[in-house]
Amino acid sequence: MRLPPCQAALCAAIGLNLLLLLCVWRWGTPQPPRPRAGGDNTAPGLTPGVTVLLREFEDFANDVPGVARSFAALRPPPPLLVVADETPYPPLPPLPPGARLLTLRPAPDRPPRLSRPELHVRTRHVALVPDGVRATPGHLERMRDALENGAGGAGDNTRVVAAPVRGPTPPRCLDLHVSLREWTARYTPAGPCRAVEGDAVLLLRTRDLFNLSFPLARPLPTALFMQAALRGWTVRLLPEAAFAARRPPPLATPHGRWKAEAAARARRRRLLADFGVKRVVLPEGRERWYGCGKETARCFGTVHARTPQYLHQDRWTPPCCLRALRATARRAAAVLAAAGVRYWLEGGSLLGAARHGDIIPWDYDVDLGIYREDAGKCRLLREAAAGAAVVDDEGFVWEKAPEGDFFRVHYSRLNRLHVDLWPFYPRDGVMTKDTWLGHRQDVEFPERFLQPLRPLPFAGFTAMAPNDVRAFLELKFGPGAIENPEYPNPAVKRLEREK
Amino acid sequence: MRLPPCQAALCAAIGLNLLLLLCVWRWGTPQPPRPRAGGDNTAPGLTPGVTVLLREFEDFANDVPGVARSFAALRPPPPLLVVADETPYPPLPPLPPGARLLTLRPAPDRPPRLSRPELHVRTRHVALVPDGVRATPGHLERMRDALENGAGGAGDNTRVVAAPVRGPTPPRCLDLHVSLREWTARYTPAGPCRAVEGDAVLLLRTRDLFNLSFPLARPLPTALFMQAALRGWTVRLLPEAAFAARRPPPLATPHGRWKAEAAARARRRRLLADFGVKRVVLPEGRERWYGCGKETARCFGTVHARTPQYLHQDRWTPPCCLRALRATARRAAAVLAAAGVRYWLEGGSLLGAARHGDIIPWDYDVDLGIYREDAGKCRLLREAAAGAAVVDDEGFVWEKAPEGDFFRVHYSRLNRLHVDLWPFYPRDGVMTKDTWLGHRQDVEFPERFLQPLRPLPFAGFTAMAPNDVRAFLELKFGPGAIENPEYPNPAVKRLEREK
Repeated sequence: MRLPPCQAALCAAIGLNLLLLLCVWRWGTPQPPRPRAGGDNTAPGLTPGVTVLLREFEDFANDVPGVARSFAALRPPPPLLVVADETPYPPLPPLPPGARLLTLRPAPDRPPRLSRPELHVRTRHVALVPDGVRATPGHLERMRDALENGAGGAGDNTRVVAAPVRGPTPPRCLDLHVSLREWTARYTPAGPCRAVEGDAVLLLRTRDLFNLSFPLARPLPTALFMQAALRGWTVRLLPEAAFAARRPPPLATPHGRWKAEAAARARRRRLLADFGVKRVVLPEGRERWYGCGKETARCFGTVHARTPQYLHQDRWTPPCCLRALRATARRAAAVLAAAGVRYWLEGGSLLGAARHGDIIPWDYDVDLGIYREDAGKCRLLREAAAGAAVVDDEGFVWEKAPEGDFFRVHYSRLNRLHVDLWPFYPRDGVMTKDTWLGHRQDVEFPERFLQPLRPLPFAGFTAMAPNDVRAFLELKFGPGAIENPEYPNPAVKRLEREK
Repeated sequence: MRLPPCQAALCAAIGLNLLLLLCVWRWGTPQPPRPRAGGDNTAPGLTPGVTVLLREFEDFANDVPGVARSFAALRPPPPLLVVADETPYPPLPPLPPGARLLTLRPAPDRPPRLSRPELHVRTRHVALVPDGVRATPGHLERMRDALENGAGGAGDNTRVVAAPVRGPTPPRCLDLHVSLREWTARYTPAGPCRAVEGDAVLLLRTRDLFNLSFPLARPLPTALFMQAALRGWTVRLLPEAAFAARRPPPLATPHGRWKAEAAARARRRRLLADFGVKRVVLPEGRERWYGCGKETARCFGTVHARTPQYLHQDRWTPPCCLRALRATARRAAAVLAAAGVRYWLEGGSLLGAARHGDIIPWDYDVDLGIYREDAGKCRLLREAAAGAAVVDDEGFVWEKAPEGDFFRVHYSRLNRLHVDLWPFYPRDGVMTKDTWLGHRQDVEFPERFLQPLRPLPFAGFTAMAPNDVRAFLELKFGPGAIENPEYPNPAVKRLEREK
């Protein structure tokens, strides 16, 4: 079949126009990032490539120029960003072309964008390098490919690739579990790789890094791995892509190392305070505590509506406070028992003992009942009743509560965590007292619950308790109290069940 | 002329396709925001309207619900944002619809956008309201119009409109000059309106607010006006648009006011530390000092390459340090003179005295020369020479410098700002000494410059000086030293002339 010239021209015109249309459509509109299986490694406005970011170095002794020169010698050289809290002093020597210094601390006369690192990384990936590292051609690309292509099955959530920096001890993987509710970070040697111990270059997607609330907080690896663990990310360690490092390391002198270690400790304390982590369990099981001791104030303020501030933040009692409460309860019970004062676990403390032999994990004090007639047998209670605050041999402080006819044992003079001692007395077979706080559980009860008292494990020691714990607790809190945990004031804040 | 059907179809096809092309072109590409003359009061993504932002309130006693209800009753109700550092405790009662609470403190398990207020204000203008304010219909619109339409001539840079909150003392305008170089903020009653004293509602463009590095730092008015002054913005006070306020005010009890004032003082100290402002001059001329006293460490660290850290930050010596140096110099001169020790202003201190009768504004110590043979006449120098650090009656510390054969008088034990005393001795008519630091000005000179010594005003007292100051200085620093100020080590950091 032969087309007349006019029809041929028509067809050609339509075809050309359709082609043009398609081109305009594709080029003229921004392409939404196409999500790839396993993550969003393309992001609008970011270009392919890896930015090298140097954050962990000391002002007084560093190898920033050496690191910068080493990466600047790669072909093509990657963009390099040196990030500091403020302009280093003494100043850094001039950096090679392509390397920039960014300071995070805002200044009142400058616009905020100058101190926003996320506006200064233009590549899709970023590599966080320790001070002293030397570039190896191809390693950054290998790490990026491992992140983007090497992912395993559907459950794989690898978001960080780590490459060792050669040194005396090779880096190793650890599992890391962060429970903000329990203010605890726990490292364990076995399990999925969620943290790397030892010097390593860390590569991740720029988008992922800057979707963290603390993207460049120091110590950088600690901050990064904790936030990654909270998001369920895993780390892939690539032993085959090891980087060289300067010998001797930038902090070669004993004085330099000492200064750097002191600075790192201070930064770690600040980071954990910012994160709200008060207990770190190391891989070998040792515990490190941050904040709240005998020499610090109680780490939560006045409790309003029986709902401490931490419950509103969806956290439970800080573990150091629980530890201090346990020590205070053990001490109070030991002193009372030694003096022949009959005491028993009361209220929420008895509830915790019945549930799991410990303080309820969101409780903020311990309650013990005592026979009022026995109080005089104990010197510390006699002196407290006379109006004095008495510091005992172990530093606990015994005093009469200003709110009514009961006693308090404080953890220390400064740290006002406490055990309340409620003096009850029998009247017609019923135990009663003179100060009532109006709580549901603050009621009279038959004396037979105390005849006899029974031992019950609590908070790491054996405390005395009423003889029919279930009946006693259901009298006080209502049926099912043991089985159905609830916050002290559900009208203000309810316990959310684990999903 | 009549077209054959085929040609007509061809034309129609081409025309239709061109039309389609145009449509796709226009709709498919993002439109860049069109800048308007007179300022950027339209911003991409922002809609017309005013967001009410409540930032200044105390957790323990506030009227946030009252403010929110009052603005929610406007027709149409403006969006209302309550901004707090962290979730208030005790918790705020539920807010009316359209009002939201935003917390600025990032959390390690949340994305950063949740604590970025700039992502939560969607209107082109924002009104910062003090606690307790009551809405008046039309006032916010009046303020916005005053900002957008009421501007005067070309030099007008009004970026903030203030409306008084009715109270015992009506707000007034102050001029405000912030010199970061001199670490000083100075309020004066006359001049352009750059700050408002007293409770006021402040309206500004959302873009302007969030182009500040500290957009919502507290105390909010102080932070805002200081940053505005640094940018040359002016404020327009609209007395006719006064807002009502709750009576009694939210902080009605003496205890509440005391607590709030203590908290405000702490916040102000933190703000001024963040800004690097150490001296505030109030409108009546009184001065308030922040940081660096006898009981604090010297507010700059070890000086490297004769260029203190503050010079690298384009700042001069903190004014409190200058004040402390003046006091130390006055004390050292008085003690030396009383003991009969001949002394004279040396080096940079003499240069400052010659230029303007004071310490050079970027200098970090004071230098005096003394006759070595006179040193024994002064008890403090005798004891210092014997190796002791002696605290004198006024708390200054005299000691032998560890670096060589000279003495140091420190401002205090803790604050190591100091005056150096350099012992010279004559040899063949030339003054020489035993310790040399290798600076240009650290050279021998003919004794005739000291025969006789001449009084010269310096740092608020009358010091002794060589008798031909110009010749002495040009011998030490080279010709033109008095007329051409320069930083101590121009190879590291040069003085930039005022533009």
